Amino acid sequence: MGLVVQKYGGSSVADAEGIKRVAKRIVEAKKNGNQVVVVVSAMGDTTDELIDLAEQVSPMPAGREFDMLLTAGERISMALLAMAIKNLGHEAQSFTGSQAGVITDSVHNKARIIDVTPGRIRTALDEGNIAIVAGFQGVSADKKDITTLGRGGSDTTAVALAAALDAEVCEIYTDVDGVFTADPRVVKKARKIDWISFEDMLELAASGSKVLLHRCVEYARRYNIPIHVRSSFSGLQGTWVSSQPIGDKKVEQAIISGVAHDTSEAKITVVGVPDKPGEAAAIFRTIADAQVNIDMVVQNVSAAATGLTDISFTLPKTEGRKAIDALERNRPGIGFDSLRYDDQIGKISLVGAGMKTNPGVTASFFEALSDAGVNIELISTSEIRISVVTRADDVPEAVRAVHTAFGLDSDSDEAVVYGGTGR
Amino acid sequence: MGLVVQKYGGSSVADAEGIKRVAKRIVEAKKNGNQVVVVVSAMGDTTDELIDLAEQVSPMPAGREFDMLLTAGERISMALLAMAIKNLGHEAQSFTGSQAGVITDSVHNKARIIDVTPGRIRTALDEGNIAIVAGFQGVSADKKDITTLGRGGSDTTAVALAAALDAEVCEIYTDVDGVFTADPRVVKKARKIDWISFEDMLELAASGSKVLLHRCVEYARRYNIPIHVRSSFSGLQGTWVSSQPIGDKKVEQAIISGVAHDTSEAKITVVGVPDKPGEAAAIFRTIADAQVNIDMVVQNVSAAATGLTDISFTLPKTEGRKAIDALERNRPGIGFDSLRYDDQIGKISLVGAGMKTNPGVTASFFEALSDAGVNIELISTSEIRISVVTRADDVPEAVRAVHTAFGLDSDSDEAVVYGGTGR
Repeated sequence: MGLVVQKYGGSSVADAEGIKRVAKRIVEAKKNGNQVVVVVSAMGDTTDELIDLAEQVSPMPAGREFDMLLTAGERISMALLAMAIKNLGHEAQSFTGSQAGVITDSVHNKARIIDVTPGRIRTALDEGNIAIVAGFQGVSADKKDITTLGRGGSDTTAVALAAALDAEVCEIYTDVDGVFTADPRVVKKARKIDWISFEDMLELAASGSKVLLHRCVEYARRYNIPIHVRSSFSGLQGTWVSSQPIGDKKVEQAIISGVAHDTSEAKITVVGVPDKPGEAAAIFRTIADAQVNIDMVVQNVSAAATGLTDISFTLPKTEGRKAIDALERNRPGIGFDSLRYDDQIGKISLVGAGMKTNPGVTASFFEALSDAGVNIELISTSEIRISVVTRADDVPEAVRAVHTAFGLDSDSDEAVVYGGTGR
Repeated sequence: MGLVVQKYGGSSVADAEGIKRVAKRIVEAKKNGNQVVVVVSAMGDTTDELIDLAEQVSPMPAGREFDMLLTAGERISMALLAMAIKNLGHEAQSFTGSQAGVITDSVHNKARIIDVTPGRIRTALDEGNIAIVAGFQGVSADKKDITTLGRGGSDTTAVALAAALDAEVCEIYTDVDGVFTADPRVVKKARKIDWISFEDMLELAASGSKVLLHRCVEYARRYNIPIHVRSSFSGLQGTWVSSQPIGDKKVEQAIISGVAHDTSEAKITVVGVPDKPGEAAAIFRTIADAQVNIDMVVQNVSAAATGLTDISFTLPKTEGRKAIDALERNRPGIGFDSLRYDDQIGKISLVGAGMKTNPGVTASFFEALSDAGVNIELISTSEIRISVVTRADDVPEAVRAVHTAFGLDSDSDEAVVYGGTGR
């Protein structure tokens, strides 16, 4: 008998009908002879409504209390889901993150899982129950306070439980059919990927693909837990994410897995930096001290006449204010002329392990962009990824051009429904 | 420095404004030099909305999951209240029933508190925090499952915590000014009671007064915790419930504390019962086995000619169906002719320790009812209470007549606002 962990996002359990539909699917997995553990997110807009309430009582809600508040969301969905399953004649018990043994550090609102001790889940399974676990939440190791894992936390809960319970697979149910070669809202001919390696999936997630978050894939790779991303609305096979293709189906690793894009970043250029050792270090120490994560970094060639250079980097738009403030505060120590802030940029990334052994990939990528009339502002590469920054307006056309150039277009003209994935 | 436990009902924290108003009141108590523990119910209609959701997914929600669901309500209100207090510049931490050490038996939906181990609350207080505790909920001693205490459970949580923490007083904040000599919706001249003994309060609660529930008062009496029932909307002194009057104010025990009424009961008459030993026992064993609580019992004088008698008893209307079914099932064993069910009855009770030493009270009570033209159907008495059953339609007039006859009418004509008390 296999053990399966299934995760359902907020859009799959948005209302009573959704909960009943999901309950039927869970019971099917149980009937197929599996032990089933289900991780569930809060219903539809519950989390947003709770955040709205918090903002009404306090402009800066305390982290501990904010987590206590938000975790009410999964408590509701998991209890309702257990009831719906029992109503179908099967035994089910719901467990909070704390009860399920999801132990985290104490960083409220974005805690990290440091251990999973699923003793109560094992007992529930051994007694014939389907175990329903609240996603997104845990309990801190030191203070025993309730914590939340931040965006995409429910996926991480599911993978962490799958690892701790040595599950055969972690199924992530969402409102799309799987991982696509590009965002189907932008590229109508995007194809569903049948199988993708952890490494390529990590690069896609880091480059703007929203189906799975980086942290969740990283966790799955570390413990070698196969993930199956699929739709909770259809019965179709989705995308397998694993170290090796699974099952009898022979899947060859594609040269290129897909094209990702991201318009959530901004670019800051530090203008007139003295071209001497330690300057870049001073800038990025300032940024790091402000707890800002940066993405791409480029230093321009110094103008010989002035001995000054410009340094550009990209970062989430939401962190822009913080970074600018920190740099301005430290301007005397760093020494630069001015700052330029540009939030009208976009990033296009080509991801595929095959590019390691196919030297023409980079050239083809730039040619495709050039043919589409897209100007490149920054370039960054890893072993299995090339990313460029362009004007935000150019992104859709650039993604389509690259997708076609690498032969990723589907033969079918069928439109694919694609939406957000909740948390 | 004193320790005060305050409890706020759902109507006091119905929205963000209510939560902020309550937060100010709590901070005042803290500023007055007290250690403050706050027990809070779910916001306004939250519980009803959750029950509605449960009914949408399952006609008979399982007790364990139903409790898991409902406890989300206090989680939301307590986290918001802690945020609102912190926003006023004071430290606050919220705790679930489980975290606060409220240990119960395993009877889901109406668990009983069997122990309170408030170690985390003590620590939070010692660190200078205001401790916010979820009312209505606990954790079962054996299975560590989340439980709820049933109707009025938040009041019981507050009294139990006050006892475990050896608090000076348990303040129950509600949407009325205190306990009244009668329901002000029925008797415009009802007076607020300044002080009432535990014993009289217990009888009032058992007789239909809804401000405090019987179980909560019983708990307070056992541990001798003074209760102060007061309005969260006004700053007025409310009603003290304790073994002895508190403070410098000399309060004399009134002969009569008040008049309570109850129209939530029905009457079942078992007709044609053989007048021989064991018959009444068979009837009430049947009722008890069906888990039905009964209130008053009357056996009519047997008609000599037939050797048959009638037995009448009252019970909550909500239990009527269950009792009738149980009796019908056991009719062959018990032996009776028929059952009569009457849900158009009302009960009027006069409560006061003074009636023990004032023999005229019973006579005056019956005279007042007679003068008002009210017919009495059943009578039941305790040492400090007289109750009669009448037609439901007669109840308002009967209550007013008795209230006036015993000199309880207020001199003021001011209308008193009176509403429900939440859970």
